[in-house]
Amino acid sequence: MSYSFWKLGRHGELAVFELFHRNNPFKGEYTILAGLDEVVKFIAHFKFTEEDITYLKSMPSLKNCEPEFFTYLSSLDCSQVEVRAQEHGAVVFPKVPFLTVRGPMIVCQLLETTLLNLVNFPSLLATNSARMIIEARGQFSEKLIYGKAPTCAEFGLRRAQGPDGAFSASKYCMVGGFDAIANVIGGQKCGWPVIGTHAHSYVMSFDSLDQVKGRKIKDLKTEKEVELLELVLKYRKELNYGNLHEGELAAFVAYALSFPHGFLCLVDTYDTLSGVKNFLTVALAMVELGYKPRGVRLDSGDLAKLSIETHKLYEEIAEKYNCKELRDLDVVASNDINEKTLRELNNKGHGITVYGIGTNLVTCQAQPALGGVYKLTQLGNKPRIKLSSDIVKVLIPAEKRAFRLFDKSGQPFMDLLIDRKEENIPTSGTKFTVYDPFNEKKKEIEVTPFEVKEIIKPLWDGKLVKGHNALDLNIARETCKNGIASLNPEIVRQENPRKYEVRVSGDLYDELHHLWSSSRK
Amino acid sequence: MSYSFWKLGRHGELAVFELFHRNNPFKGEYTILAGLDEVVKFIAHFKFTEEDITYLKSMPSLKNCEPEFFTYLSSLDCSQVEVRAQEHGAVVFPKVPFLTVRGPMIVCQLLETTLLNLVNFPSLLATNSARMIIEARGQFSEKLIYGKAPTCAEFGLRRAQGPDGAFSASKYCMVGGFDAIANVIGGQKCGWPVIGTHAHSYVMSFDSLDQVKGRKIKDLKTEKEVELLELVLKYRKELNYGNLHEGELAAFVAYALSFPHGFLCLVDTYDTLSGVKNFLTVALAMVELGYKPRGVRLDSGDLAKLSIETHKLYEEIAEKYNCKELRDLDVVASNDINEKTLRELNNKGHGITVYGIGTNLVTCQAQPALGGVYKLTQLGNKPRIKLSSDIVKVLIPAEKRAFRLFDKSGQPFMDLLIDRKEENIPTSGTKFTVYDPFNEKKKEIEVTPFEVKEIIKPLWDGKLVKGHNALDLNIARETCKNGIASLNPEIVRQENPRKYEVRVSGDLYDELHHLWSSSRK
Repeated sequence: MSYSFWKLGRHGELAVFELFHRNNPFKGEYTILAGLDEVVKFIAHFKFTEEDITYLKSMPSLKNCEPEFFTYLSSLDCSQVEVRAQEHGAVVFPKVPFLTVRGPMIVCQLLETTLLNLVNFPSLLATNSARMIIEARGQFSEKLIYGKAPTCAEFGLRRAQGPDGAFSASKYCMVGGFDAIANVIGGQKCGWPVIGTHAHSYVMSFDSLDQVKGRKIKDLKTEKEVELLELVLKYRKELNYGNLHEGELAAFVAYALSFPHGFLCLVDTYDTLSGVKNFLTVALAMVELGYKPRGVRLDSGDLAKLSIETHKLYEEIAEKYNCKELRDLDVVASNDINEKTLRELNNKGHGITVYGIGTNLVTCQAQPALGGVYKLTQLGNKPRIKLSSDIVKVLIPAEKRAFRLFDKSGQPFMDLLIDRKEENIPTSGTKFTVYDPFNEKKKEIEVTPFEVKEIIKPLWDGKLVKGHNALDLNIARETCKNGIASLNPEIVRQENPRKYEVRVSGDLYDELHHLWSSSRK
Repeated sequence: MSYSFWKLGRHGELAVFELFHRNNPFKGEYTILAGLDEVVKFIAHFKFTEEDITYLKSMPSLKNCEPEFFTYLSSLDCSQVEVRAQEHGAVVFPKVPFLTVRGPMIVCQLLETTLLNLVNFPSLLATNSARMIIEARGQFSEKLIYGKAPTCAEFGLRRAQGPDGAFSASKYCMVGGFDAIANVIGGQKCGWPVIGTHAHSYVMSFDSLDQVKGRKIKDLKTEKEVELLELVLKYRKELNYGNLHEGELAAFVAYALSFPHGFLCLVDTYDTLSGVKNFLTVALAMVELGYKPRGVRLDSGDLAKLSIETHKLYEEIAEKYNCKELRDLDVVASNDINEKTLRELNNKGHGITVYGIGTNLVTCQAQPALGGVYKLTQLGNKPRIKLSSDIVKVLIPAEKRAFRLFDKSGQPFMDLLIDRKEENIPTSGTKFTVYDPFNEKKKEIEVTPFEVKEIIKPLWDGKLVKGHNALDLNIARETCKNGIASLNPEIVRQENPRKYEVRVSGDLYDELHHLWSSSRK
């Protein structure tokens, strides 16, 4: 395409492309925009290297291209490109551009696939994360039987599309509202909190208490070094837990010796509730020494039931020893958790306080791709349209502006698209007439927004627009959180959510329907 | 875990981990092993940098670790590690290790998550690709109505998990048997063939024949420059196609001028069959000038029906002008193609010659993750086991060797696992007694393989094993192709495939059941 534009001398024509999606993922009614940080980096560094040009010249399909074309290609960058975008982390709705790109036809076209790649998966992932967080602790918190509203941690590195797919997931799940990640590089590069426990292999590597015999730990109350195992064995005897797996107990003692302040054990290597008992045996010793144990992780079985049984064991031992430190310990649950299992757990009742979510978070199993597209909507001063037999696939033409209309309570109730050329824009407290773009009958709808905010704002004008915070992921995380909190809960709810309205101005309605009927001739 | 091993002085204990999967993906009965090239690179470069160590020291969870631990960490590499693996691109089966890792406990454990990441997605993707290829052209070729057995090209960049997720997909779909990719960097880095057409936006950017008026092209028969549009308009008049979309015709003329040897048009921007007619108008002119047009791409609608209608139009015009060059043109089809739609297209009958497969290839929508795991199977000389209430999750203990047993016809019929310590190994033409590992009743099964091949072979012994070709993706591609071709078609078939047998030696059976019963006490 680039070569063809160049050959016809059309490469410099001023084009406008818009990146948008037609449907929200996961049968929901909202999407979280993510990936703008990488969009900015890509645009800022867009350039064909000498190595790239050498490869392109060698491609059989390009071997007949005039050599001047490659010289021209190597001169291209994004200094002539203007990008406007919604905020990083914003709640976005179908048909309203995530971002618009305006510039020389050839450059705008070359950006297409990479921009889609950099926005589609991050937005899908952030949306998936937000939905999981809401399901995990939002709506059903009154049904929690024990403990606090659960937090969510990302555990997906092993199942993602390579190291960078995993890093993207770690990065953007936090934009969507996750609380922590288990992928260390996400902590190193983004500053996100990293958590982790140990693996089954750690437990399996112990088979005898001799492996931890004689190991000392500081008693925080007396400041003296004491042998941890000895104390553990005292409790083991008192509790009559002598029949439980010794290798596992040794592993837990070893872990407590290494991480006295972060003592959390994976308990299902052999038998989950026996594992909890082994954990509690060591936990009692740690409490006696002045440490605060953290809890256990369950990785198999009926998580609802086992988490409740675990809390019962916590309670039982806390009661027996009058030890409040064992009352509010964590129960971390992992093992193929997804939005549906979260809902089921909430419906059943459970005692999980931390979810570790891997595969279904990073692969977005319920819908593994977001169908964001990048379409030419204007060329020079002429709006463009693409037809489709499917009404939702018809393009809204022209370079657009978008406004979000809020009611008195601060809730957004409509996104409104107008042609950038229009002078009449919606303002707070003033009546405005809008139209449903895809209704063939032009029907006036009057709205009087209490407040109006323009939502597609300058991001890049040859350089990053001053003061823009697309690169700050913490701000994106806040934007997402506030955006979801501001919505009508009927739009956010997971089952049968209500559709958010997107409408157009009268001029844009006319442009669409004029182009539509003339193109169908 | 590493810190704990180090603190107990156990970091140097000799451990064996095995990476394997428990179930084949996509309800199939085979898996393609991929990703070994990145495994080798990762192992070769495994090292904590100074920057890494600084970050680790700063982590709240590690702040109480002894400083000597970090000094020790920074000294680690894989020079003491031995890795054995099946061949890159091999057909692999559940429970038989993709690879085994033997070395100091601490290093083996640190490799876990990254190894899983580097193998899980590539193997899933290669398997998905192989299945699509088989569906697209293998079993149903007799049902093709027009043209040759279809080829498959990867079109997934815009929907993958970031640029590297997309690159992984482009890289490993070719290992699984795809014919080409549309991701240029996959051509640049791997040498894979790159193909591509133009987008709807290209067509939408033209609205008048004036945009291509006066443009010359060389007549290959006379060597003279002629105006292409003039010739096109002659055919347009003869064919009475004057009512078709002019902008589209202009776009096709422009594309022909730019790529006279690769003239292939996307025809569904406005109306698919009108688009085919516009294409044929230009194609006739190109044939008259001595060029060979390539065909059209369909991106929406009923692909089976439209592809047949397209061939009918090819035939009609070929007949009218007695022009054989228009008879065997390509029909490229894209738009949400997956294994199921391929099957439906085959059942219906169609005229598609090239599939462009994007989203469902790169996201592996039907099953977006492979559940490969990495488990400790031996520590020192002691085999290890992990129990599970689920029988298929029980681990087969010990460091193992694996043999593939072939029958007289060259077909593999069984993979056999034995403990690496065993001296009695299966040999060609000799009776051998094997057991079903998960049958609680020890039942002898006698087999006499015509041929025996050891399938887990040395890959890394402190350096890449000499002569190993894990890095050569072309060899992996051949291995995959030959591996699938050698299988019993009943195992390969997509519906109700037959299970491939994996068995163990008597010693290994005894080890498993001894550990099983003693761990359950």
